[in-house]
Amino acid sequence: MERDTRKQKREKKMGLGVPALPLTLGVHVLGVVAIILVLVWTINFRGGLAWDSPNKALIFNIHPVLIIIGLIVHGGEAIISYKAFPLKKEVKKLIHLVLHAIALILGIIGIYTAFKYHNESGIANLYSLHSWLGIGVIVLYGIQWIYGFVIFFFPGGTPDIRRYSLPWHALFGLFVFVLAVGTASLGFLEKLTFLENSGLAKYGSEALLVNFTAIITILFGAFVVLTALADAPAAVDDYEAI
Amino acid sequence: MERDTRKQKREKKMGLGVPALPLTLGVHVLGVVAIILVLVWTINFRGGLAWDSPNKALIFNIHPVLIIIGLIVHGGEAIISYKAFPLKKEVKKLIHLVLHAIALILGIIGIYTAFKYHNESGIANLYSLHSWLGIGVIVLYGIQWIYGFVIFFFPGGTPDIRRYSLPWHALFGLFVFVLAVGTASLGFLEKLTFLENSGLAKYGSEALLVNFTAIITILFGAFVVLTALADAPAAVDDYEAI
Repeated sequence: MERDTRKQKREKKMGLGVPALPLTLGVHVLGVVAIILVLVWTINFRGGLAWDSPNKALIFNIHPVLIIIGLIVHGGEAIISYKAFPLKKEVKKLIHLVLHAIALILGIIGIYTAFKYHNESGIANLYSLHSWLGIGVIVLYGIQWIYGFVIFFFPGGTPDIRRYSLPWHALFGLFVFVLAVGTASLGFLEKLTFLENSGLAKYGSEALLVNFTAIITILFGAFVVLTALADAPAAVDDYEAI
Repeated sequence: MERDTRKQKREKKMGLGVPALPLTLGVHVLGVVAIILVLVWTINFRGGLAWDSPNKALIFNIHPVLIIIGLIVHGGEAIISYKAFPLKKEVKKLIHLVLHAIALILGIIGIYTAFKYHNESGIANLYSLHSWLGIGVIVLYGIQWIYGFVIFFFPGGTPDIRRYSLPWHALFGLFVFVLAVGTASLGFLEKLTFLENSGLAKYGSEALLVNFTAIITILFGAFVVLTALADAPAAVDDYEAI
């Protein structure tokens, strides 16, 4: 009887009514594929990764690797952490905030390497839409993380503030994540356009690889959003228990 | 008493509980601004629009104008049509499908002009992420429109099919719309990168104009999604009355 009421409540709350667990598998697989593709591109096609090198291109290569591993994959996994495990709410919250912290730190280092590459190569900073949105994403991501930490973890807001904040926290978080996926796609297109202007074949294997990496990244983002809208596996109702 | 129950139901269904009407104003204003900016760019900075011309760049200019007016602004207004007016459901449905039809037709003509420009200028087709996603968006948009027409308008599906389809129709529609906004942003970045490679100043007024047009387009998209998640002004409950 109690189960029924709970189930009904869940169904009212969320129109889709699909279970999250099969979708989380899609998220994990697409995330791993995106990481493998960006590593194949930067290491096998672009000469590898280096923090310091006379070949400045190797410094740039760290940028897409850290953004995909950090902001995109860790960020996406952090978002679906409430839907991925039948664990206690407090444990899932800890996984959520730690994964987002890793995403944020790798994102900041990833953005730093783009500036480092530009500065050591005499390339202008912050003129493109990709760079503008990238700065916007990392600032919003940081604000969102701090707000979440203070209100939902330590010291924690009043029950009223938590209740009213939670749907906005989730919606704004999804907005920043989708913006991050879009900004990463802009980055793939921008870098590939530079390479093609310098003579890279437009229909060659590297061009196809970069475009497919972007499409896998977008699909990963779509699966993360879909999973976030699906029903959690545990009977614990996160919205009720805040 | 009846009003209370209805209000409670609405609140259960949608976590945000904000009224849509003020948000629709933001959508209209941002949409008009986006259209003005893309016209200023293509007419004042890029020499104007032409269907046939020895100056092939004028043919290209039709592409961003039709995509922004059509797929983006008419598409976005179509999405929020259920939230923008306190009208009868059948009238709102007609507005919804007609606006989407206009968006789709302008989108198809807009994509055609990009091919026309490429073919008449000897530029390769369909090698970039922008072009791949653009084809994806227009195909998905067409499928979504036909499905919506057949199931929800004429001849119409069974009540069960309508009830189960509606949240998926809304979610898939938002996905295609967000993908369209992202693809438009890729287009702005791609075109500007080509122009900058041909000598356009990276921090000049045209570069800033194009980047701001893209940012206004993204903000328009964000307001459309937010409005779609907000409460409709009428007492008519669209989900209950399908």
